[in-house]
Amino acid sequence: MAAAALANGDVRAGGGGAVPRPTNPMVTPLLTDLYQFSMAYAYWKAGKHLDRAVFDLYFRKSPFAGEFTVFGGLEECIRFIANFKFKEEEINFLRTALPTCEDGFFEYLSSIDCSDVEVYAIPEGSAVFPKVPLMIIEGPVAVVQLLETPFLSLVNYASLVTTNAARHRLVAGKPKNLLEFGLRRAQGPDGGISASRYSYMGGFDATSNVAAGRLFGIPIRGTHSHAFVSSFLGLDEIIDKALSSSDGSNKCENFVSLVQNWLVKIQDASSLRGSFGETNQSELAAFTSYALAFPNSFLALVDTYDVMRSGVPNFCAVALALNDMGYKAVGIRLDSGDLAYLSIETRKFFCAIEKEFGVVGFGKTNITASNDLNEETIDALNKQGHEVDSFGIGTYLVTCYAQAALGCVFKLVEINKQPRIKLSEDVTKVSIPCKKRCYRLYGKEGYPLVDIMTGQDEPSPKVGERILCRHPFIESKRAHVVPQHVEELLKCYWPGNS
Amino acid sequence: MAAAALANGDVRAGGGGAVPRPTNPMVTPLLTDLYQFSMAYAYWKAGKHLDRAVFDLYFRKSPFAGEFTVFGGLEECIRFIANFKFKEEEINFLRTALPTCEDGFFEYLSSIDCSDVEVYAIPEGSAVFPKVPLMIIEGPVAVVQLLETPFLSLVNYASLVTTNAARHRLVAGKPKNLLEFGLRRAQGPDGGISASRYSYMGGFDATSNVAAGRLFGIPIRGTHSHAFVSSFLGLDEIIDKALSSSDGSNKCENFVSLVQNWLVKIQDASSLRGSFGETNQSELAAFTSYALAFPNSFLALVDTYDVMRSGVPNFCAVALALNDMGYKAVGIRLDSGDLAYLSIETRKFFCAIEKEFGVVGFGKTNITASNDLNEETIDALNKQGHEVDSFGIGTYLVTCYAQAALGCVFKLVEINKQPRIKLSEDVTKVSIPCKKRCYRLYGKEGYPLVDIMTGQDEPSPKVGERILCRHPFIESKRAHVVPQHVEELLKCYWPGNS
Repeated sequence: MAAAALANGDVRAGGGGAVPRPTNPMVTPLLTDLYQFSMAYAYWKAGKHLDRAVFDLYFRKSPFAGEFTVFGGLEECIRFIANFKFKEEEINFLRTALPTCEDGFFEYLSSIDCSDVEVYAIPEGSAVFPKVPLMIIEGPVAVVQLLETPFLSLVNYASLVTTNAARHRLVAGKPKNLLEFGLRRAQGPDGGISASRYSYMGGFDATSNVAAGRLFGIPIRGTHSHAFVSSFLGLDEIIDKALSSSDGSNKCENFVSLVQNWLVKIQDASSLRGSFGETNQSELAAFTSYALAFPNSFLALVDTYDVMRSGVPNFCAVALALNDMGYKAVGIRLDSGDLAYLSIETRKFFCAIEKEFGVVGFGKTNITASNDLNEETIDALNKQGHEVDSFGIGTYLVTCYAQAALGCVFKLVEINKQPRIKLSEDVTKVSIPCKKRCYRLYGKEGYPLVDIMTGQDEPSPKVGERILCRHPFIESKRAHVVPQHVEELLKCYWPGNS
Repeated sequence: MAAAALANGDVRAGGGGAVPRPTNPMVTPLLTDLYQFSMAYAYWKAGKHLDRAVFDLYFRKSPFAGEFTVFGGLEECIRFIANFKFKEEEINFLRTALPTCEDGFFEYLSSIDCSDVEVYAIPEGSAVFPKVPLMIIEGPVAVVQLLETPFLSLVNYASLVTTNAARHRLVAGKPKNLLEFGLRRAQGPDGGISASRYSYMGGFDATSNVAAGRLFGIPIRGTHSHAFVSSFLGLDEIIDKALSSSDGSNKCENFVSLVQNWLVKIQDASSLRGSFGETNQSELAAFTSYALAFPNSFLALVDTYDVMRSGVPNFCAVALALNDMGYKAVGIRLDSGDLAYLSIETRKFFCAIEKEFGVVGFGKTNITASNDLNEETIDALNKQGHEVDSFGIGTYLVTCYAQAALGCVFKLVEINKQPRIKLSEDVTKVSIPCKKRCYRLYGKEGYPLVDIMTGQDEPSPKVGERILCRHPFIESKRAHVVPQHVEELLKCYWPGNS
């Protein structure tokens, strides 16, 4: 799994073997802003292009009005610089885009790679905080400038959606199953693929996205849609009605009849009497067909017509027929309506079935909910009480609807060992000069207390020594900290052996 | 230009020549939800996979609380289906993802392409409205289901960002220059590339994104960043100080001195006296260097230190020196602060320079503004009064921050000539059954009045005949319309010759 590989440090150079190319083949050295090239030319003209520059990549505020961010995108940045080299046709295009530049500049561009660049970074998947650089990039100023836009493009959304996923995990709680269903609503195909990858990094269990499953080894999930249900007209459409039992010991020649018999039994059951009338037959046909195709993993979407009057009873009839044949149905999915109410009513129905027909465990049949879920709606469901086991989350997760962008920036902090600053009337936009070292200080219980930055050559904080720190969230507040453990936050990821 | 090519119908099949592959190589038949495959298997098991199905792709509500949407993404959908074919390794992956499915199913998957599929669509770039299908997709139900997720993924964001760009154009007005600067904040690299492409379709003039410029023939723009300015320590860094005049007739051996002389003249000018003191010398060095590299296209970012006290006077000194050599400076960019105030003050400064030194046209020097601009801030600037000629727009444009998703859906409306419906407790979610024809009715002045839908076999609306229509925005209202012109909205884009 690519994401895990990075956490283990496998993508660091020097580990032997070539670093693979970026996952998206569109991530090339041309995927940058034109001004990076016009600046490179101006540096080159001024003979400054090899000046040794240090840039910090950081954000100014955690997203979603929250107090943390989870860093994502590092592996793709390393893949990018490890393979950074202009192709001839790319140089030719740049000649047309910058027609007044001298030939020597394009020869210089043709020659460059990132062997002179050093990248220090916090490990991907870490909790990170405002102003502390996620990455420090050092190298010839013209080359490092060319990396600005692709690095930001690879880190900004990755970190945003990883953070969003982690926040959904926190609100849903550990035992719930979280499924990412966002491909169709994501901001383009790559947005979808990145969303699946980084949602998994942020704590989701699976995705619906087959391509992402293949690329990153993420478990994939999915059963059927409303269209599948409404595509059936009735039970007479089912031609092959036979189903072998789970252990292969016997065969039911007419599984459709078995389902119909169970539906009658459910209708007649005293504890369920009157809770529903005639169920939708095209839905019953769809469920039965699906069960015949996937007897081991039957999960039905129950809200195409009416959840409690049709979908749930139809599901139970098919699930009980499957039970007769030694199969255990997985559960149902709710995709509309009052999810708290419907999940509770469905659970009651399942429990009544368990009791009425003595099918042990039926009451615990899985209930998945989807339909425009987000942090707030899950929190509201929790407060209201519900019986949902799995949440399928799409639009709000993958588009980070509550805050669609993380404002990571890439600022020059030092050139030829001289500190540089960008001033601004907006104090939060003033950059912090100098090449830095960053540390996470841990307290007695092993919990992290605060992240601090020092100048490159200042002494590092020592275990047991009192340090005056700025409060992490309240600018004006200072606090004394005595670390029990000091962790240097940024490690060298490129070139790795330096 | 790909976008324009589509508008001319060039991507329709039957036009001769193969349809190119999707722009993003990651758009493959696996870029879909797993349930499309599990449904395909269930259809196949039930012998229903060749049932002829009709799906509508539509949205329920225009984004950004607006009354229109601009349709984008069609060309990529056609590229996708024109090249739809599973590779052997993709089939092998599906075998692992769906381990209980029979071999015959994977053989069927290996055999399918989209030659049996028909796609009718409204031309890309058209204004479109809720509920009227943007695309009607007809074909074998199992195949068309597989197209659902990729089509939605290709259309949803494309249409959203095209619409967002069009809204920015409407609020900025026709004469303004609109530049898309969003790559670094977009939702991943492909989000950035799509944003550039569809912003151009929606009415932007140029992008900063070099890769998008190359792929789609979009004009690209960009000069330099704050880092470029702060990377210079002073004027003594400039080694090669010579500049030939625009017509090549003479050469200034020390352009730096020429700039310095102009700065003194500006400082001493009676109309500007006292408006600024000493300017930042590292900024002056950066501007001078940039001008030496790009004397024909000098545009300076003036807010690294202080716009009115340093950036604008420094710019003017360099621009006047360039003017001496026969070059016309392009202008300045403001990236922070009160853009209305600063643009007005800058314009006054430019006009004073024009008057003081008799440089005709200097007062009209271009002012570009950037920094978190969006529809609302541009509207506020307009109301306040400003002197901005060009807007550089990033985050809010490309992430569609105000509404990060368009909810296009893909609903089964007919199977084997039988109408199908999806019911819902939420009335807006009930689908409209039957294969449809859609028309745009035009009034006397040539303006469109309303879009209407009919059943496939119902008579089409006739010019001059009174028709009772539902009001396009007020559900309960009816209106009589007498069209002067009737346009059929959906055209066949695939297979094209049918």
